[in-house]
Amino acid sequence: MNYSYLNNIELEKALNILLNAAIEIGAGQQAEKIPVREACGRVTSEAVYARISSPHYNASAMDGIAVCARSTFGATDTTPVVLQEGKDYKMVDTGDPLPSGFDAVVMIEDVINLGDGTVKLLKSAVPWQHVRQIGEDICAGDMILPSNTVIEPATIGAMLAGGIQEVWVWKRPLAGIIPTGDEIVPPGGTPEEGKIMEFNSSIFSSMLSKWNAVSKVYDIVPDNIELIKGALLKAASECDIVLINAGSSAGRDDYTARAISELGTLLVHGIAIRPGKPTVLGLIKDKPVIGVPGYPVSGIIVLEKLVKPLIEYYNHYSMPEGQTVKAVLSKRVVSSLKYEEFVRVKLGSVDDRIVAVPLNRGAGVVTSFVKADGLLHIPMNSEGFEGGQTVNVQLLKREDEIKNTLVVTGSHDPLLDVMSDIMQRTWRGEYISSSHVGSMGGIMAVKRSEAHMAGIHLLDEETGEYNISYIRKYFPDRKIILINCVKRIQGLMVKPGNPMGIKGISDLARPELKYVNRQKGAGTRILLDFLLRKHGINASDIYGYDREEFTHMSVAALVASDSADAGMGIYSAAKIYGLDFIPVCEEQYDFILPEKYMDMKLVKHFIEILKSDEFRNTLQAMGGYNTDNAGSITVL
Amino acid sequence: MNYSYLNNIELEKALNILLNAAIEIGAGQQAEKIPVREACGRVTSEAVYARISSPHYNASAMDGIAVCARSTFGATDTTPVVLQEGKDYKMVDTGDPLPSGFDAVVMIEDVINLGDGTVKLLKSAVPWQHVRQIGEDICAGDMILPSNTVIEPATIGAMLAGGIQEVWVWKRPLAGIIPTGDEIVPPGGTPEEGKIMEFNSSIFSSMLSKWNAVSKVYDIVPDNIELIKGALLKAASECDIVLINAGSSAGRDDYTARAISELGTLLVHGIAIRPGKPTVLGLIKDKPVIGVPGYPVSGIIVLEKLVKPLIEYYNHYSMPEGQTVKAVLSKRVVSSLKYEEFVRVKLGSVDDRIVAVPLNRGAGVVTSFVKADGLLHIPMNSEGFEGGQTVNVQLLKREDEIKNTLVVTGSHDPLLDVMSDIMQRTWRGEYISSSHVGSMGGIMAVKRSEAHMAGIHLLDEETGEYNISYIRKYFPDRKIILINCVKRIQGLMVKPGNPMGIKGISDLARPELKYVNRQKGAGTRILLDFLLRKHGINASDIYGYDREEFTHMSVAALVASDSADAGMGIYSAAKIYGLDFIPVCEEQYDFILPEKYMDMKLVKHFIEILKSDEFRNTLQAMGGYNTDNAGSITVL
Repeated sequence: MNYSYLNNIELEKALNILLNAAIEIGAGQQAEKIPVREACGRVTSEAVYARISSPHYNASAMDGIAVCARSTFGATDTTPVVLQEGKDYKMVDTGDPLPSGFDAVVMIEDVINLGDGTVKLLKSAVPWQHVRQIGEDICAGDMILPSNTVIEPATIGAMLAGGIQEVWVWKRPLAGIIPTGDEIVPPGGTPEEGKIMEFNSSIFSSMLSKWNAVSKVYDIVPDNIELIKGALLKAASECDIVLINAGSSAGRDDYTARAISELGTLLVHGIAIRPGKPTVLGLIKDKPVIGVPGYPVSGIIVLEKLVKPLIEYYNHYSMPEGQTVKAVLSKRVVSSLKYEEFVRVKLGSVDDRIVAVPLNRGAGVVTSFVKADGLLHIPMNSEGFEGGQTVNVQLLKREDEIKNTLVVTGSHDPLLDVMSDIMQRTWRGEYISSSHVGSMGGIMAVKRSEAHMAGIHLLDEETGEYNISYIRKYFPDRKIILINCVKRIQGLMVKPGNPMGIKGISDLARPELKYVNRQKGAGTRILLDFLLRKHGINASDIYGYDREEFTHMSVAALVASDSADAGMGIYSAAKIYGLDFIPVCEEQYDFILPEKYMDMKLVKHFIEILKSDEFRNTLQAMGGYNTDNAGSITVL
Repeated sequence: MNYSYLNNIELEKALNILLNAAIEIGAGQQAEKIPVREACGRVTSEAVYARISSPHYNASAMDGIAVCARSTFGATDTTPVVLQEGKDYKMVDTGDPLPSGFDAVVMIEDVINLGDGTVKLLKSAVPWQHVRQIGEDICAGDMILPSNTVIEPATIGAMLAGGIQEVWVWKRPLAGIIPTGDEIVPPGGTPEEGKIMEFNSSIFSSMLSKWNAVSKVYDIVPDNIELIKGALLKAASECDIVLINAGSSAGRDDYTARAISELGTLLVHGIAIRPGKPTVLGLIKDKPVIGVPGYPVSGIIVLEKLVKPLIEYYNHYSMPEGQTVKAVLSKRVVSSLKYEEFVRVKLGSVDDRIVAVPLNRGAGVVTSFVKADGLLHIPMNSEGFEGGQTVNVQLLKREDEIKNTLVVTGSHDPLLDVMSDIMQRTWRGEYISSSHVGSMGGIMAVKRSEAHMAGIHLLDEETGEYNISYIRKYFPDRKIILINCVKRIQGLMVKPGNPMGIKGISDLARPELKYVNRQKGAGTRILLDFLLRKHGINASDIYGYDREEFTHMSVAALVASDSADAGMGIYSAAKIYGLDFIPVCEEQYDFILPEKYMDMKLVKHFIEILKSDEFRNTLQAMGGYNTDNAGSITVL
């Protein structure tokens, strides 16, 4: 099936087409009257004028007596003025209305009571002293709020004080979300093979509500043009905006584009962005329809870049611009000239500069958005950026949080997640971020000041000793601290019951075996290579030697499935997947960091965690760890 | 009644006492399990681990055939490999599970169909090519989120993909709000004199929901110690936190403090902040109780400074710090050494510097928070700041909005509100801010670059001409643009039917009359003084000459009440209040600005508004305006 897009149009153009279409159909002009009490965050559709003044009467601002100032003129210590209750004065408490005919209040402290219903004053009163006058806060007829203003808590108070109980605000747009796809099933349980759980609608509706839109999620529609058309018509008649979440496969897009053009107007099909190219824009029954690509990452980008501005148009209010920061790229990012690209990056603040580490660019990897701290924008006609280059990154997380994050990289071990969990439970606003680039990658990252520390487990084949010789070699001229972490058991993970009867390294070359390896530079891979040499095995004889995974968990996951028979990794990963485990050796897993970071509060807490019972008990339960020396320090 | 506070303790100490009390009672440890779909914005109370992998099966990433890579090794154009359907390969579409026994996919484009159930390949397949492997996104057992993490839309997708439908999050605290006071009535209608509408609870609950707390507003309780105690006990047993909104009058505080100490523990009574001193902190039934002062401004400050951090403790998450900016103070702000003060300021961005104009400091003036763009913090033991001094201001509005605001000051006229409404309806994200300092104040503000332009109506007594001679006098060396606005009718506002039979200026000195004046520097006051001299009237003979109001509206509001018989102002204000109006003269109301601002987009739009039919028609309807030359420009 040879499919071609209608266009490959720039994002900005596509957005303008969409917004102009919205303007032409007169979208976003519906207002509704709601109780002021519930109006916080809503946007006024017309100016609000006070109906009554506040205060709406002249009120005494003191406990004392209300007088007519004139009647007190000339009062002094030597020429006091005597006033008669009822006739010349009346008692008032704070908040009481000023009795008519009176125009000032004398504090009770300045009133000498003569007992016989008269009082003596030694000081004359200034007209309107201690009187809170009508309209001091709001005058009837004052404009409290102009149109298109966000209603804040204090404004709610002002409106109520001004006698306004209901206010006209713009109606928030209702966005219908239609998930489609034969392979899509609602979340729940463990779907059978070939079925994929539908979670995009939950992502999208959460995003929409953040943007003050209301969303309605429809049932999943199978890949059938007629059913899709039916769903589109229904949603278009019930909602203000329709999102149809087609997959990005040509066949599927074909349906969406076709359905829209058959039911209404197809405006755009194919936008020059990555991820997010297979996007469809159109109109059905004068309602904007967006065909959102099926891969979650593409979908999130398309909602951010196209749907959000549309929502803002309906709400007559633009959200604050996302903050951007300057960051140094940790490695080269290549981009196609034909596309505007958005790359998720992990940010780390090291030595007062922010480093951006590009994350998995796969459009299907939603966790890349969970891990992402920022979005790197690569314009069209750019081939990308070089490593070390300073780039602008749009923040997805708070800068203060990024700056309070200890950046740990290097070799992967699940214990890092345990540590970051303990950190966030123990110290509010302190974080550990960990990325997995292998032990050697970790050493290089620390050398380049891209991380505060690295987890490493590197065997010196001559001495049989771990880590230290590597530190000496790669940091000849710098003081490096080695934080002892754990001894952990490495071994071969095999299927439960070891059906292939694997006894050790020597079996890995058996032709019928499928192996899964770790990425180059990973300590575990270096360990394997060492063992292969020891056993005189040729890497090329191992089927799957070139098959690279980045974590112990993913190796275990593949061995647990029928896609691999064996892989090397740590015991705790094997245990999670109920795999058999053939121990090969115990290795030393440590953290290294330049001495200057030892003063950081985050590092102190990091070491506290290593020494904590909670950490030790958790690793005990995970199995395969020896934490006896965890947290002890060696200066190298 | 002589009342004294328990203490006058620093804010920071008071907050620590409150938070430590919360820790001691083990507050904020309740978690709840909620559907992942509804968890956006909530905070995890424990780490979330993936239950299943995503994808949970090896999926074909292409339409094509599934093969065992080994069986294709060696295939080239000259030595093709022929495979048999079923035995050597199976057809697969994108997303299909990889049939067991196969480990690679060959794109349909690279498959030569020989028809007889066999295909020919000219290229060998690499193991696992075009296969989306198990766990590519998430591996079962992976930690998706650590504890105390805010759940974002993408995280919701990751959790659902990881087989998690329900998540443990911290329970949001429930805050009970008890309004009290004999004079307090629920909002609605026009309360009788002596009654004040209760709107604080609406302000507070809106603030609380912004901070992710839930609030419950109780019925108004009269000033009765037993009833107050009853209400406190009920709220303390039903809620996590109790706010009792006592007024700041000694008598009332007395009740709250007494009630708390009789029912539980009184921790603090009296905090060294302004506004907000009369604050009570305590515990009842192991629930924090905050006695919030009754004046809305004090209440808002106390919630911001004390309740917000408490809520954050319950939610295990701190809101982002409010952004602060450097600003130049327009005038001196005096503060008491004994108090930490928070002053609302209006911010204007003029000539790339931000100017802060202090607003009404009255704790009862809720509109000061509506107008405020920022909060100026004056520490204890400081006497305040001088005019022209650069200070740090905590932003209450968005900086980008402040920078897109045309700063207009000077003489007051309701037409400025009309213009700002038209501006916000016509140009998204463009604003006009106006403050009222009188014509002369406006000239000085423009001279000091504290505003872009000023509205003035200044009569030259010699020439009888308006504004121009003043500009020449005060800007001898600068090019000033005069934007013609309106001719408006000034006159005496008197009660409907003119019961006192006021005919003109000459009557104002009549002893039985109560006059209300405008503030010094106001054009209207200058006009009055001119007329008084003309009629040979002595200002000191006018009862109320020293009574100063800042707007035409507030003068009208006082004349409409029985607190004044006459005041000078413009026709439109008199009309709103249904007052009789005795025309005195027609005056010219214009705007002046330095020429350099004429290029500003905001100024261009400002002039467009002056020339618009909408503006002219609105003023027509308001009455007393002549807009024939509105928008015409004179260079001086």
